Amino acid sequence: MSLTVGVIGGGQLARMMVPAAINLGIDIRVLAQNEGESADIAVETLGEHTDTAAVLRFAQGVDVITFDHEHVPQEVLAALLDAGVSVHPRPSALLYAQDKLLMRERLTELGIPVPIWARISSPADLDAFLADNGGRVVVKTARGGYDGKGVRVVTSSDEVSEWFALGEDLLAEELVAFQRELAQLVARRPSGDLAAWPVVESMQRDGVCAEVIAPAPSSAGRVAKVAARIASEIANGLDVTGVLAVELFETTDERLLVNELAMRPHNTGHWSMDGAITGQFEQHLRAVLDLPLGSPAPRQPWTVMVNVLGGPVTGSLTDRYPALMAAHPGVKVHNYGKTPRPGRKVGHVNVAGDDLDDVVYTARAAAAFFEG
Amino acid sequence: MSLTVGVIGGGQLARMMVPAAINLGIDIRVLAQNEGESADIAVETLGEHTDTAAVLRFAQGVDVITFDHEHVPQEVLAALLDAGVSVHPRPSALLYAQDKLLMRERLTELGIPVPIWARISSPADLDAFLADNGGRVVVKTARGGYDGKGVRVVTSSDEVSEWFALGEDLLAEELVAFQRELAQLVARRPSGDLAAWPVVESMQRDGVCAEVIAPAPSSAGRVAKVAARIASEIANGLDVTGVLAVELFETTDERLLVNELAMRPHNTGHWSMDGAITGQFEQHLRAVLDLPLGSPAPRQPWTVMVNVLGGPVTGSLTDRYPALMAAHPGVKVHNYGKTPRPGRKVGHVNVAGDDLDDVVYTARAAAAFFEG
Repeated sequence: MSLTVGVIGGGQLARMMVPAAINLGIDIRVLAQNEGESADIAVETLGEHTDTAAVLRFAQGVDVITFDHEHVPQEVLAALLDAGVSVHPRPSALLYAQDKLLMRERLTELGIPVPIWARISSPADLDAFLADNGGRVVVKTARGGYDGKGVRVVTSSDEVSEWFALGEDLLAEELVAFQRELAQLVARRPSGDLAAWPVVESMQRDGVCAEVIAPAPSSAGRVAKVAARIASEIANGLDVTGVLAVELFETTDERLLVNELAMRPHNTGHWSMDGAITGQFEQHLRAVLDLPLGSPAPRQPWTVMVNVLGGPVTGSLTDRYPALMAAHPGVKVHNYGKTPRPGRKVGHVNVAGDDLDDVVYTARAAAAFFEG
Repeated sequence: MSLTVGVIGGGQLARMMVPAAINLGIDIRVLAQNEGESADIAVETLGEHTDTAAVLRFAQGVDVITFDHEHVPQEVLAALLDAGVSVHPRPSALLYAQDKLLMRERLTELGIPVPIWARISSPADLDAFLADNGGRVVVKTARGGYDGKGVRVVTSSDEVSEWFALGEDLLAEELVAFQRELAQLVARRPSGDLAAWPVVESMQRDGVCAEVIAPAPSSAGRVAKVAARIASEIANGLDVTGVLAVELFETTDERLLVNELAMRPHNTGHWSMDGAITGQFEQHLRAVLDLPLGSPAPRQPWTVMVNVLGGPVTGSLTDRYPALMAAHPGVKVHNYGKTPRPGRKVGHVNVAGDDLDDVVYTARAAAAFFEG
């Protein structure tokens, strides 16, 4: 049985698939834009993910194509399908991770709980939505946003005038009163089998995931069940294959509403690399290869992930290893091999244990060694 | 801080260093003899480990040279030191892993408990040793043996006549009456810091490690303490850097005697990849780079490793994944990317959990999917 996976995109998500591929004897090949990207060790081809000919050449001889990001255009994906290449997640599902308006429409059809939203074609539409929703709402570009980019909280349509100038419809959403943000990750095979990790709590800083606690505190009962049900309904309803990340708001009145979707391993799943029996990168590879899924059960009562955002002002992450490792011998360091730059995701740390306060403290303390 | 490690040898031990290197952002480069070896993904240079010029070229630009095996000749190692290359374990320590007679002499000087042994230069020496030790003893070639090769149980010097013909001294040892075999792994930095994993029980089949239980059952008290002390004394006494594996006999009268040494990650440490906070491959890289060592504490009460020896008679290991993974979603499969061949180590499985009987059963059942 040949197990050859082609990954489009050479970022840290592709990089972190490599250890899982090595363990399972999976031949992993990466298409990256440039030399020296995070997934360098597995890069086979340099090329643009928008270049149909380059992507088709890259796909020769692989059993399945999957992704480091959701930016591959539908026309390139269609060419892969036409050429008989297996693609997971399927383009028909990926569409909903690429276009937030389509996602909101489809989730609403499926009866999935979402914030109040509207398709906005003009400033007048937005003014009307503002008037109906307390005068302060969220506006998002339908495409291309991530990590807080393409998202604005506005009180007037003037604040997104340059987005209107692009000529594409926008998504407006109520400003949800939430007590915390959660993320529910599941993996699904083409055959339909599905495995759900425990729901996690995710803390954002400037629109970027900064910390994750797995499982989410006080989520053992209803919250865990509802989150897993929502993600399963989305995975089945949208026919998602591979890892699906569902970002959720837990509202002040204790409802769960779907915020964003991603159809790939996700920052809120990095804890699972050290904290679950099957980490998200191994599970994604198993899922897209249509292999039986591994157990998503946690190994320890608590695992906390803290992102390294930006990294050291001077020098490299590795300069901080001696002090960090001497102070925290139980911390798992993940270094993406990227040059530090303000706000850039350059790594993360995972810490697991029995006592949540200890685990949170240690994870934050360890990540802090990479600051300043 | 540059972290570039050159590994001499392209086998599965080099391969399994790669995931740990990727996680920590360590640049790992492998010198392999041939294309398509187990550590293929990280191979930078093809060449012989006995070719001084090739090894010196390979070593340019690395921070440290370490090993997949102990077969690099001392003259090649000396050339590396002369060229100013950092080598760990150091050649002066590695000598004792390369020559069993020197090892026995040095351990005896250090007061480490070993079987009764003798240097054998002639059939007459062996006849005398046989007469003194019950008429049935173990004879080993001093160099080049592994996995039961170069080891024979004999009752007469005729049984190793072709070894005498080689003109090198042999090692004779009493046939130890042991109740089980244990292995104690430690890691040691050049600075002297040392970390010990729990002592494990190792079960051999035809002289090859077949199963490991971590920690060794009924070893919580004296056995664990004595094993860790013996391994620490050897690591310090021989100035070992990196991972040191000490194979031990637990005798029927409950003494621990040192059987073999290896100065590299070892088959009896594979459980730690999934069962310890710091696996042996990560720890070896940290140790040879003189970084602070990680916690060797187990993640779960029990971890069992079962080797895949030989592999499927027809087809590949991956052909067996669908059935294995469907039956055992909690099993961690490690596939070395080698062609199955009778007796060859082609992979292993790790299973962790709270109940030893369950864990042993599951690990054996999972490994059995690769047979026949």
